[in-house]
Amino acid sequence: MTRILTGIQATGRPHLGNILGAILPAIKLSQQSKNESFLFIADLHSLTAVKNAEELAANTRAVASAWLACGFDADKNYFYRQSRLAQYHTELTWYLLCQTPYPMLANAHSFKDKSDRLSDVNAGLFTYPVLQAADIVLYHANFVPVGKDQKQHLEMSKDIAGAFNRTYGEVLTIPEPLIDESVMVIPGTDGSKMSKSYNNYIDIFLPEKQLLKSVKSIISDSTPLEAPKNPDTDVTFKLFSLMADEAETATMRENYLRGGYGYGHAKQALYELICKKFEKERELYNYYTEDTEALEKKLKEGEEKAAEIARQTIAEVRKVLGFN
Amino acid sequence: MTRILTGIQATGRPHLGNILGAILPAIKLSQQSKNESFLFIADLHSLTAVKNAEELAANTRAVASAWLACGFDADKNYFYRQSRLAQYHTELTWYLLCQTPYPMLANAHSFKDKSDRLSDVNAGLFTYPVLQAADIVLYHANFVPVGKDQKQHLEMSKDIAGAFNRTYGEVLTIPEPLIDESVMVIPGTDGSKMSKSYNNYIDIFLPEKQLLKSVKSIISDSTPLEAPKNPDTDVTFKLFSLMADEAETATMRENYLRGGYGYGHAKQALYELICKKFEKERELYNYYTEDTEALEKKLKEGEEKAAEIARQTIAEVRKVLGFN
Repeated sequence: MTRILTGIQATGRPHLGNILGAILPAIKLSQQSKNESFLFIADLHSLTAVKNAEELAANTRAVASAWLACGFDADKNYFYRQSRLAQYHTELTWYLLCQTPYPMLANAHSFKDKSDRLSDVNAGLFTYPVLQAADIVLYHANFVPVGKDQKQHLEMSKDIAGAFNRTYGEVLTIPEPLIDESVMVIPGTDGSKMSKSYNNYIDIFLPEKQLLKSVKSIISDSTPLEAPKNPDTDVTFKLFSLMADEAETATMRENYLRGGYGYGHAKQALYELICKKFEKERELYNYYTEDTEALEKKLKEGEEKAAEIARQTIAEVRKVLGFN
Repeated sequence: MTRILTGIQATGRPHLGNILGAILPAIKLSQQSKNESFLFIADLHSLTAVKNAEELAANTRAVASAWLACGFDADKNYFYRQSRLAQYHTELTWYLLCQTPYPMLANAHSFKDKSDRLSDVNAGLFTYPVLQAADIVLYHANFVPVGKDQKQHLEMSKDIAGAFNRTYGEVLTIPEPLIDESVMVIPGTDGSKMSKSYNNYIDIFLPEKQLLKSVKSIISDSTPLEAPKNPDTDVTFKLFSLMADEAETATMRENYLRGGYGYGHAKQALYELICKKFEKERELYNYYTEDTEALEKKLKEGEEKAAEIARQTIAEVRKVLGFN
């Protein structure tokens, strides 16, 4: 089996951009029979930024519900909160810290960026890449899907694991990046990349009325209703085409080019498409957020399964460190 | 009860300087009925420098045997290896890292000193003061005996614990330094401070012949046997007086001042004094190093006791973090 590991930030309810760009591709990968996916909510990492316990817990529940709602199979794969296995993640982090050259962390781009930007530059932020390395090697992950901006972190994970192995023998599995070249950029309501920080996102889990309002807020130009419109420069069409099948997309393209079809019509169609395409997801999301026991049960089962592997890795590591 | 916490570096067999200057005073403190002492072997810290598992394990056994041999009451107090409670120490370390301002660590004297001096400047060395803070607050220690060179580290522990409490409420006990003004400087065989790194130490646990040879290697001036000698500038006299009672010291002083008493005689007397004073300690040391099961049993009992407290602190901390 090939082990694929993905950490998810507990930043709250994922939006359409997250779902199309990250969640659905990851779920597709996890469905391949040769793969087992380790999907975890990186709520220990969140502590470097979020200091409010209730906010963190709520965000964690929202993220977990969304992944389950979108079809992640927690029984075939591994689904867990990092914080519930904190003892393993953090113990390995210490062992890896002792193998990580200080300058490697001090020179990491991500730390420099963040320390320029943030007021709370804490040591957790600085050692973040080492916890990340521990997250990966704890489960002997083979591949970690990364965007280009995350490549340096994965290189660091490889270097840190390699340093440990050079000192203590071949104990840890060296992970490799899995770079998806076809990463989609999902436009937000204002046309720039959909992102929580730009506040231009569509939340597909909203009640219908609010969802419709959100879709209606998508930017459009002032071409009058009767005139033909250019689908290739329009955000609504772009979002529609990302979710519709070929025939639906072709029809919509014709509507645009023919004229007499307004942006309001297109937005209504996009709204209906979202409702139809994510009908089950919306239901399941509500189920998991309302029935917190069901969510908790799923997570606890995943955590027990993951703990078995983590315990074994820690035992192997402690053995070579002389701590048995 | 007042909790006093001391971490011991696992640097191998303690020498006479360690025993007179640190171990015996700490044991005296631990014997006071109002105190409970937490004494642990800081073998997680050792990983920042020692990368050899066997060396680390042997050093740990030697240190533990010496403390027990010198009379530390592991039943009344707490005696444990940090590595056996690694999960608690490292988990708390992560939480504290997220509360530690990066510049506090970057500007610490000890890190600057070490990073100038050492070739292996690893991130464990950098985050060392945070693990140290975790070591202390994990057991709600009230006092930490420190030398002047360690004062900055304890100030950092206080600051880190204070930062955690400001964010999450009064969960952690803020420790205070316990500064022993009467710290003895024990001279080594060459007259400078006795230290492993100067290789001028006397190992009281050596077999008799080797111990005698070690004592005979103490520096002395070329005053002839017959001539009077100055006790106050002589290393042998100094070491003798640190261990002898008043009457013995007075007699030795007379021997020096009278003349006709050689350094060889004084060294022989010092050797005999060490053998007499540490007779039980030497026996016990051999017992614990030979009967590793007896040592292991003592440590395991201590670790179980300490784990109870550590578990409770972690539970309290996780509660305020929202990880319950």
